[in-house]
Amino acid sequence: MSKNKKILILNTGGTFSKTYDEINGNLVVPIHNKAIEEILGKSKISNCIVSGLIYKDSLNITQRDRILLKNQIKKSNHKKIIIIHGTDTMDKTAKYLAKHIKNKTIILTGAMVPFSLDEIEATSNLMLAFGYISSKNKKNIYIAMHGNIKKYNKILKNRTLGVFECQK
Amino acid sequence: MSKNKKILILNTGGTFSKTYDEINGNLVVPIHNKAIEEILGKSKISNCIVSGLIYKDSLNITQRDRILLKNQIKKSNHKKIIIIHGTDTMDKTAKYLAKHIKNKTIILTGAMVPFSLDEIEATSNLMLAFGYISSKNKKNIYIAMHGNIKKYNKILKNRTLGVFECQK
Amino acid sequence: MSKNKKILILNTGGTFSKTYDEINGNLVVPIHNKAIEEILGKSKISNCIVSGLIYKDSLNITQRDRILLKNQIKKSNHKKIIIIHGTDTMDKTAKYLAKHIKNKTIILTGAMVPFSLDEIEATSNLMLAFGYISSKNKKNIYIAMHGNIKKYNKILKNRTLGVFECQK
Amino acid sequence: MSKNKKILILNTGGTFSKTYDEINGNLVVPIHNKAIEEILGKSKISNCIVSGLIYKDSLNITQRDRILLKNQIKKSNHKKIIIIHGTDTMDKTAKYLAKHIKNKTIILTGAMVPFSLDEIEATSNLMLAFGYISSKNKKNIYIAMHGNIKKYNKILKNRTLGVFECQK
Repeated sequence: MSKNKKILILNTGGTFSKTYDEINGNLVVPIHNKAIEEILGKSKISNCIVSGLIYKDSLNITQRDRILLKNQIKKSNHKKIIIIHGTDTMDKTAKYLAKHIKNKTIILTGAMVPFSLDEIEATSNLMLAFGYISSKNKKNIYIAMHGNIKKYNKILKNRTLGVFECQK
Repeated sequence: MSKNKKILILNTGGTFSKTYDEINGNLVVPIHNKAIEEILGKSKISNCIVSGLIYKDSLNITQRDRILLKNQIKKSNHKKIIIIHGTDTMDKTAKYLAKHIKNKTIILTGAMVPFSLDEIEATSNLMLAFGYISSKNKKNIYIAMHGNIKKYNKILKNRTLGVFECQK
Repeated sequence: MSKNKKILILNTGGTFSKTYDEINGNLVVPIHNKAIEEILGKSKISNCIVSGLIYKDSLNITQRDRILLKNQIKKSNHKKIIIIHGTDTMDKTAKYLAKHIKNKTIILTGAMVPFSLDEIEATSNLMLAFGYISSKNKKNIYIAMHGNIKKYNKILKNRTLGVFECQK
Repeated sequence: MSKNKKILILNTGGTFSKTYDEINGNLVVPIHNKAIEEILGKSKISNCIVSGLIYKDSLNITQRDRILLKNQIKKSNHKKIIIIHGTDTMDKTAKYLAKHIKNKTIILTGAMVPFSLDEIEATSNLMLAFGYISSKNKKNIYIAMHGNIKKYNKILKNRTLGVFECQK
């Protein structure tokens, strides 16, 4: 690990990077990290690296995927990790990671609207996480969405409104 | 001040919000905060408020403008303030504020490319500041640009490359 | 009918105007003509009017819908009509209209990529039709897609490539 | 000339393809045809070719440039030519070409808003010309802007409103 590349961004898929398949007329999770890379490139950000290991709608994330993700994180030298994840099971993955990983700062984020459809929300959520993780903070598992960053069990998706809200 | 609206975003203009004037064919600083408001709206962010007080290209920011800005900040109840500012004299305004304001966290940010031309860099810089200011951090004057947030005198615009770089 | 509003644009839905439903994560045909209106507005076009009568994915267009569309066209004073239609059954609707309407110039067009996802192809197809219908041409039923405008039975969707191609 | 590549698009610059220069903060006419090529690519258009010969703001187009353009057109095998041109002197170039070229259909078009800033108007104007030139029409010099295509001396830029209007 290079000393200057402090933050690791791990892509697991989700709405964040969905792209349109013209032939079938569907939005699909592509097997690449281009949405993240376009954000970093246009934002002139060089102090992080991007890696993808699962490319799934979060409704299809399995326990095996979570184990894979956890092992990847444990193996990594990085102490500051942002995970791009679908919003539907972001809380489950966060809870699982919280049980197994104690000595790293991990922030899960994602998007309600694909970056390919509108660039703002996805960029906003990723950079919210990026700004928070750049500060001095307690090693913990966080969720960063819609302007709020909280410990993973203090912020929840309101499925009716489509917004993440802080819990009392 | 409402308890839920913790972060104040103060607009002073700059490239960030420049828009195209069709009749004259120029990019101009508009007298409104629509670029910031569009980012916050599409990002579903409600825990902040936006206010504008100077709408200038930063090359035209005067000492009088800086005094006005400083007074506005002192008067405000907000302890966490993000300032949207042109990149050319961002460091001068930061230095001036650092001399006069001790008990607040202030982050200056802006953009090299107008939000109206490309939404990513401006959104990225604003949300980098937003994420950082949401954490626990030392009261100080910071600059947040291009993935880096540092004390205002530790980060500088490289005018040849058009990128803000950390100073040793 | 106003003398200056010569061209009628009739919206029947299709991929052209699909928008993203955040709550369900699907692309849906909205019950409005905003995509068309945004194109006309930003293009500063005032010599046409827009009207919507069916808002469906073209796979769901029924014979009853075609009768409705035909009756609407017969009733209208307009001699030049552009129909926004899904690409999958554009040829069927065109064939049906060709049987029943002899004294008007009608151009069917649409898009493979929703305007909400990428503005170029939808704008391009609509304006291709608009430019052609603005000229002197034989009263007939045409399809305008991907740079080609031909009599409806001389141009066909290549479903493998996702492109409309001229037939020999 | 290939039989299938019937339409020639000649780029002379203008607002249509201006891009943002971050270092100087200006919009400049680039020495390439990427805006046109992006429109054609995303529109899946293959029945035309693009060529650039002057890359200037139309206020800087000289009589020498017009002679160059006229000679290029005379030399070309193409009978149908679209010229991308700045809006300020589009009428002057059209008038000059009308004096010298009798046996071709030439449509001048351009944009009030750079394609790099907003994709719709530029795409709309180009495709309006493209649709019109695809029809059978009298060999002549036309201007196509904002939904109107007329003989070059029957349509004029309203410099106060920033819209091209038909002349009585």
